[in-house]
Amino acid sequence: MTDDLLTPLLQGDRRALSRAITLVESTRPDHRDRAQALIAALPDGGALRIGLSGTPGVGKSTFIEAFGTRLTAQGLRVAVLAVDPSSTRSGGSILGDKTRMELLSRNPRAFIRPSPSSAHLGGVARRTREAIRLCEAAGHDIVLIETVGVGQSETLVAQMSDLFILLLAPAGGDELQGVKRGIMEMADLILVNKADGDLLAPARRTVADYAGALRLLRKRAQDPEGFPKAMPVSATTGAGLEEAWTQMHDLTAWRRDHGHFDRIRAEQARDWFMAELRGGLLAQLDAPAARRRIADLGTRVAQGGLPPVEAARQMLDWLRAPR
Amino acid sequence: MTDDLLTPLLQGDRRALSRAITLVESTRPDHRDRAQALIAALPDGGALRIGLSGTPGVGKSTFIEAFGTRLTAQGLRVAVLAVDPSSTRSGGSILGDKTRMELLSRNPRAFIRPSPSSAHLGGVARRTREAIRLCEAAGHDIVLIETVGVGQSETLVAQMSDLFILLLAPAGGDELQGVKRGIMEMADLILVNKADGDLLAPARRTVADYAGALRLLRKRAQDPEGFPKAMPVSATTGAGLEEAWTQMHDLTAWRRDHGHFDRIRAEQARDWFMAELRGGLLAQLDAPAARRRIADLGTRVAQGGLPPVEAARQMLDWLRAPR
Repeated sequence: MTDDLLTPLLQGDRRALSRAITLVESTRPDHRDRAQALIAALPDGGALRIGLSGTPGVGKSTFIEAFGTRLTAQGLRVAVLAVDPSSTRSGGSILGDKTRMELLSRNPRAFIRPSPSSAHLGGVARRTREAIRLCEAAGHDIVLIETVGVGQSETLVAQMSDLFILLLAPAGGDELQGVKRGIMEMADLILVNKADGDLLAPARRTVADYAGALRLLRKRAQDPEGFPKAMPVSATTGAGLEEAWTQMHDLTAWRRDHGHFDRIRAEQARDWFMAELRGGLLAQLDAPAARRRIADLGTRVAQGGLPPVEAARQMLDWLRAPR
Repeated sequence: MTDDLLTPLLQGDRRALSRAITLVESTRPDHRDRAQALIAALPDGGALRIGLSGTPGVGKSTFIEAFGTRLTAQGLRVAVLAVDPSSTRSGGSILGDKTRMELLSRNPRAFIRPSPSSAHLGGVARRTREAIRLCEAAGHDIVLIETVGVGQSETLVAQMSDLFILLLAPAGGDELQGVKRGIMEMADLILVNKADGDLLAPARRTVADYAGALRLLRKRAQDPEGFPKAMPVSATTGAGLEEAWTQMHDLTAWRRDHGHFDRIRAEQARDWFMAELRGGLLAQLDAPAARRRIADLGTRVAQGGLPPVEAARQMLDWLRAPR
């Protein structure tokens, strides 16, 4: 049976898309089954998935507002999703307030989805991947996946993006080390924002610093000459945004021509499969009966009456027993 | 049936201890079964478990040599274990060469175990926990668990230690941020090494910097007034080593008196149980038949013929089917 949401979703109906994303965000077992069936019924979408990371204060919302508006002006449909595994703590700060992107949120070619408040990273990964698929199916050409620079969320976003963009603020040269090497290694493009007014010169210096740092990284198969690249932009004046988009476009075209685009997607699909598989196995521990048994065994372990390894063996036997 | 290794192990026989650790390091299923039975048969040991972290160059080996020798001079038996999840890459650098601790390695009251070359973090955790239990059972009073400051290894070591010590080198004030906040939060004692000669003044400044940073951290229930603490030491001259040991001793005594020592151990045992449980569930994926099936499904997923979530569902069904 076809889901009622499928047809309006494929027609690009925003309410249907919103409701479908709410469905994939739900943890209720019947919702999960319905979401899974819906996702399985979707045709492959053709959107470009752009991951965007930047710590608070670099002007991420202003950038997305300006960059997204520019893309829609070219006739492209843009969806913005947020990945914020820390949102329970921070009170759902990122994208929680659509007014941060007032212009874009009222744009008929744009769709903005605030991050939900649950904080489980595994769950975040699954529902973001599913939300991306839904946005694609609803006819968006670009899916921007925004994340704050916290813990593993960048890795997560990079693993579901075709391009990974790091947005930074102008900084002194000695602050360069503040960006972890691992994050730099994932970036396809580093954009130094606020390259306007008094900050223009510092922004250019920062670009030069990062360009130097990027040259020291190992050459990746998926990069043509000159990538990864660092560039100055200003979300306020719009300077550099067109050039940044050209770079993203050219890089994507090159990767498509050389087979890297499809290869990366294939690897991501395989990673998703493995993540779902591991998550599914570990989910057995969350069933009420299993939780009770784990709590009992855990108490005996904590009291010293049962060695941890023996308790784990007993629990594994219990899980494997046919019921 | 009692394992042949048990009696000599409990008598403190070094060869038996070495062989028992080799046994827990093995991944062969029959070795694993034997190791598990041996561990389950061990009485509770009374050793103090001290985790020690420090990046290469801070003088970790020299410190362990000097500190360990001092402890043995007081009649204490000391075991040194290494946790190095990166050792396949670095060529098993840490403790790989016993000559780094020439004096201690020839000391009859000391036992030094180099880190094995496998790199799987989950496996590292299990075998280190089991090796600690073996060292305790063999009559060691102190088990020093050494790790390099790489990735998650500090967290791992802190989770199996009664005390967690961070060894640092003297540094400029702006380098303080190089130590991640998360690591600082785990430390019970920060020792700034090389506090001798020209580096004495910088070492004292570094101690003051860290003492200031530690005061800004949230107060933990398991700490008496004044802890966590930063102190200068010199592994070369021996300055501060006695005082560092006194601090460790006093902190441990306070925690024992206030119930925190046993509470922390109980939590660690519970964490160990959960880690074993999760590891045991995921180990199903490593069986040869499962690997073949995962490879097949993964290929279909990568080729786009099967959605990742559907592939995971099929694999989970296969794992659950009685065979």
